[in-house]
Amino acid sequence: MARTQGSHSDITGPRVREAALRLFAQNGYAAVSMRQIAGEVGVQAGALYNYTPDKQSLLFDLLRGHMDDLLQARAACAQPDDPLAALEQFTRFHIRFHHDRPEAVFVSYMELRNLTPENFEIIEGLRRCYEDQLEDILRRGVTEGRFDVAEPKIAAMAVIAMLTGVNTWFRDEGRLSLPEVEEIYWGMVRKAVAA
Amino acid sequence: MARTQGSHSDITGPRVREAALRLFAQNGYAAVSMRQIAGEVGVQAGALYNYTPDKQSLLFDLLRGHMDDLLQARAACAQPDDPLAALEQFTRFHIRFHHDRPEAVFVSYMELRNLTPENFEIIEGLRRCYEDQLEDILRRGVTEGRFDVAEPKIAAMAVIAMLTGVNTWFRDEGRLSLPEVEEIYWGMVRKAVAA
Repeated sequence: MARTQGSHSDITGPRVREAALRLFAQNGYAAVSMRQIAGEVGVQAGALYNYTPDKQSLLFDLLRGHMDDLLQARAACAQPDDPLAALEQFTRFHIRFHHDRPEAVFVSYMELRNLTPENFEIIEGLRRCYEDQLEDILRRGVTEGRFDVAEPKIAAMAVIAMLTGVNTWFRDEGRLSLPEVEEIYWGMVRKAVAA
Repeated sequence: MARTQGSHSDITGPRVREAALRLFAQNGYAAVSMRQIAGEVGVQAGALYNYTPDKQSLLFDLLRGHMDDLLQARAACAQPDDPLAALEQFTRFHIRFHHDRPEAVFVSYMELRNLTPENFEIIEGLRRCYEDQLEDILRRGVTEGRFDVAEPKIAAMAVIAMLTGVNTWFRDEGRLSLPEVEEIYWGMVRKAVAA
């Protein structure tokens, strides 16, 4: 019986998260009730509490899940020793990963303000962990005389903001394909940090 | 009497907009009621309708006001003929203007989704107008052989996203002053578009 219940949770959990993500993205965290989320999933409001203790936990799960996915996908990438190759790899990875999940990206940025201080600190730590990877690439490039970057931490945040910005304007049916957009951004990033 | 009423509106209007901006930034548009805004201003909910017909008009006024301020402040700047000088001017102006009003910037980005289609189109037009100014500088630089930019429109959006990103991490009490941050970003922008 425990197994059946487990399986049920396994199916419903992702559906709860998907529904919450969709509603938070559309209306904002503060405007969405647990009742609405339950309605979207097709369960009673009371049943929702089998899957999550409250709305804050749901938000935290979504934001932490997004960062876990990001860090895992990044860890699965080849990590070239050459700083220029590593920077190109990071640039293309970032654009593609964020393109594939616009709602999670939007909610992750927009709802930071609605996390409790403890939860905010955890998410901030994961974000820093990702930024540090780019900062390390930039530092390595500076050490090897390949890059000229005065402040690698700030340059990392500048590059990440630029790349994440693709989500605000890119449309799959637009004039340029995603690989073409990657190429344009990679050209700008490469030059921006060049020695 | 008309004059007294006019003066009263002149005082209350800005206070209504300030209260709405603060509440939208904190909680999101969908979670804020006209009653809450009235409470924040210290007037009866009914009285609020003397100043604005509804919450959508208030949001639209805020977003249009932000873009009007941006375009007016930009129009008041010197517009150097030299593309490099014009690009530097744009870069520093953008960072400073956005630094000074983080809530308006946050709400302007986050609440686009809550505008009616007609209102969205107007705001989009104003945003495009601003982006076009940077695109024009980039195109001039390309024509004069000073810049190497494959897609000036996309480069303009990339630069704007990078510069607006300063708002997500910069703190006035931090290690670097805003002029120092301007200098770092200007260095990256200059190189990113260099011929």
